[in-house]
Amino acid sequence: MLEKLKNEVYSANMKLTELGLVINTWGNVSGRDPETGLVVIKPSGVEYSELKPSDLPVLDLEGKIVEGDMRPSSDTPTHLALYRAFPCIGGVTHTHSMYAVAFAQAGRSIPALGTTHADYFPGDVPCTRPLTPSEIAGDYEAETGKVIVEAIEKIGADRMRAALVFSHGPFTWGQTAAESVDVSYVMEVIAEMAYRTEMLHFAGNSTPLMQNELLFKHFDRKHGPGAYYGQIKK
Amino acid sequence: MLEKLKNEVYSANMKLTELGLVINTWGNVSGRDPETGLVVIKPSGVEYSELKPSDLPVLDLEGKIVEGDMRPSSDTPTHLALYRAFPCIGGVTHTHSMYAVAFAQAGRSIPALGTTHADYFPGDVPCTRPLTPSEIAGDYEAETGKVIVEAIEKIGADRMRAALVFSHGPFTWGQTAAESVDVSYVMEVIAEMAYRTEMLHFAGNSTPLMQNELLFKHFDRKHGPGAYYGQIKK
Amino acid sequence: MLEKLKNEVYSANMKLTELGLVINTWGNVSGRDPETGLVVIKPSGVEYSELKPSDLPVLDLEGKIVEGDMRPSSDTPTHLALYRAFPCIGGVTHTHSMYAVAFAQAGRSIPALGTTHADYFPGDVPCTRPLTPSEIAGDYEAETGKVIVEAIEKIGADRMRAALVFSHGPFTWGQTAAESVDVSYVMEVIAEMAYRTEMLHFAGNSTPLMQNELLFKHFDRKHGPGAYYGQIKK
Amino acid sequence: MLEKLKNEVYSANMKLTELGLVINTWGNVSGRDPETGLVVIKPSGVEYSELKPSDLPVLDLEGKIVEGDMRPSSDTPTHLALYRAFPCIGGVTHTHSMYAVAFAQAGRSIPALGTTHADYFPGDVPCTRPLTPSEIAGDYEAETGKVIVEAIEKIGADRMRAALVFSHGPFTWGQTAAESVDVSYVMEVIAEMAYRTEMLHFAGNSTPLMQNELLFKHFDRKHGPGAYYGQIKK
Repeated sequence: MLEKLKNEVYSANMKLTELGLVINTWGNVSGRDPETGLVVIKPSGVEYSELKPSDLPVLDLEGKIVEGDMRPSSDTPTHLALYRAFPCIGGVTHTHSMYAVAFAQAGRSIPALGTTHADYFPGDVPCTRPLTPSEIAGDYEAETGKVIVEAIEKIGADRMRAALVFSHGPFTWGQTAAESVDVSYVMEVIAEMAYRTEMLHFAGNSTPLMQNELLFKHFDRKHGPGAYYGQIKK
Repeated sequence: MLEKLKNEVYSANMKLTELGLVINTWGNVSGRDPETGLVVIKPSGVEYSELKPSDLPVLDLEGKIVEGDMRPSSDTPTHLALYRAFPCIGGVTHTHSMYAVAFAQAGRSIPALGTTHADYFPGDVPCTRPLTPSEIAGDYEAETGKVIVEAIEKIGADRMRAALVFSHGPFTWGQTAAESVDVSYVMEVIAEMAYRTEMLHFAGNSTPLMQNELLFKHFDRKHGPGAYYGQIKK
Repeated sequence: MLEKLKNEVYSANMKLTELGLVINTWGNVSGRDPETGLVVIKPSGVEYSELKPSDLPVLDLEGKIVEGDMRPSSDTPTHLALYRAFPCIGGVTHTHSMYAVAFAQAGRSIPALGTTHADYFPGDVPCTRPLTPSEIAGDYEAETGKVIVEAIEKIGADRMRAALVFSHGPFTWGQTAAESVDVSYVMEVIAEMAYRTEMLHFAGNSTPLMQNELLFKHFDRKHGPGAYYGQIKK
Repeated sequence: MLEKLKNEVYSANMKLTELGLVINTWGNVSGRDPETGLVVIKPSGVEYSELKPSDLPVLDLEGKIVEGDMRPSSDTPTHLALYRAFPCIGGVTHTHSMYAVAFAQAGRSIPALGTTHADYFPGDVPCTRPLTPSEIAGDYEAETGKVIVEAIEKIGADRMRAALVFSHGPFTWGQTAAESVDVSYVMEVIAEMAYRTEMLHFAGNSTPLMQNELLFKHFDRKHGPGAYYGQIKK
């Protein structure tokens, strides 16, 4: 059943490794069938190189396995919480990509610092609150979904397609599994841009400039009237 | 019309992805025909993998489409403002490359800190002033071109072939589309060098040196008279 | 003898270069045969591109060469100290991977800052104490093994599969040579995550956010009702 | 003449691009013939993809061209100053590699912070003093060689095979052209290690650790007695 969706979710999972967003068995993508409301997700702990579309289990929104022999991703309850809360979404991606994780581990939202960010997100990409000890001890993965919903519901999941889970990492979503992967990729690049900007702003502008004599010596030996860099043009 | 220029501008756009300066549909290159003054530019939002030379629209300097079915890049008015202001230039490139964006998002020029910089730019690569709210609300992309012109016109676009737009990213130019891409590439490397230098200068020289005993133990086990690293040479 | 183990240890050594964990002749992997207790290790100073399984010497736990014409890795006494102290381990890897080395050179453990770390290590990855001058002057490589054992024995080598040697770099282990390489790879990624988190936390949240007008101008030109980015969808 | 040396120096130059140490036409390698004392060097401003062994000019130690139609590298007088001062060396490499340049632009030596450094260099890799305005205005490239000699002659060019030129970048050397490239590569990696160590030491150890509950939740769901990550092993 849902062979087309399985192929789409399989391809979206494979793209995570191609884009360098995951290593080993980290990360997972799911997709929701708009007609039946059933969800297809990566099985838990399977190497990407061994994954086949037919391995992907099919679940209902409460987590009951409808088809498939393999255990779904351990993060499945988080995905399902997002699908239940946000009817507009059809795909969810989770990774441990480097810069998004750095913001999550620092307990910080990704601040909106430039137009690259603004092309995709209408404000800071929010970081959730920490889970409480009893939430961690309880239905941990479902609680993870709930704190994401808390962080997103006011903004709207159709506009803000990403969140960082405190001390953990990023979840992204979209109308399809493929779109959720694309948001994941762009968010990682934007997180790196924000990281570099914060570092540069913090370090300030303190290195002494080079000597003017050296600046013009080098510029002129390539571009000045007596340039002697390179071969004589014929 | 302008098939040769279309091929050049197409190749210059494709080189942006090969050099790792853009992902997805980010970035765009244009070129100006020296005889007619017409401009060829990347169409808006088209994947590089699907781009063909014949897709590239031809425009006059006021933005009127002379040939082509596809919408030109949304940044076209910025390119045209540069061509109108600087008759010496024949190609313009815009990217969201990482380190140039970090400087732009920090609102900073790229400082001239060494000879690699001086080989290409006769001083700091300037960052524009922020646009005013009314400039943003008005003819935004054309106003973006105007603040670049403001930042460059005293230095001269023939000598300073790059600028950063505040909160946005880099624009570069040259006598041809290919040259503008080359400047874009070099500027990104130089921006990273400046970033690393600022960080290193800021952090200072505070890590304790390794123990002298350990230093000479390791150097001597490879290079000293009793070296025992590696195989015995026959 | 031990042809199967030699092949496994050979493959594990080759994987170090494939994963980008070592350059030149840096790094080495060994494996222990569970039946005989003998150890197979990379020969010293041999280029990975020239390495063959049959080059790998076989040693007993005291370092006596049982088979092989080539000198074992100069770090062999460190490996053997770990095998003697920890009967549960069957493979050891040593690299000079970038971020693990940065923590080792700063004399710091890798702090447990997020769930990626927690998926592999039940707490900070410890950094050893510095060796004393007399330990460096003495049986240096064996002493290196001893300070690792000191740092790990309370936690247990079955749970904490990695340590950093002060001013030097990482050693990792596992039930097999291949597992020790996998831990080495994951530890390097986790070390980079910790590095980025420390930098981001230290720099704080000080860069001014972009102008709201610019934020919504860009978001809306792609996603708003009057979006004009990209081609008109047919 | 010197065809064997030309091939060696050609290969050494090509290796600079393969190792990612140079882009465009940046960087150059030379080699000295031990019998005649003549030097072979990369021609100036030639793309690596177009370089042929027969393009390489042959010079004497005073810079007189003995064979070849192409202009030698503009950095040739720096190479020759090193050959004249240090009879023990047979190859010289110059690059603008990222981290070595960052130290040079910050006006800093690369500090000896760990055993990776100690395996190659018996102490800090020195940075030269700045050139004076009159040295820059005079025989600039030869003066560059002289400040390197000043920085190295007390340590000995046989032991310390690298230096950074203030505001510029690294020069390395060795018994052959190939060895000078190898030192250049290793120095770049070591410079990055020192950079990361300085940053990490400076930022300190200030990020709060993750919650213990979350740490053990994640460790135990993969490694504890009730682990539920991955597939059930058959």
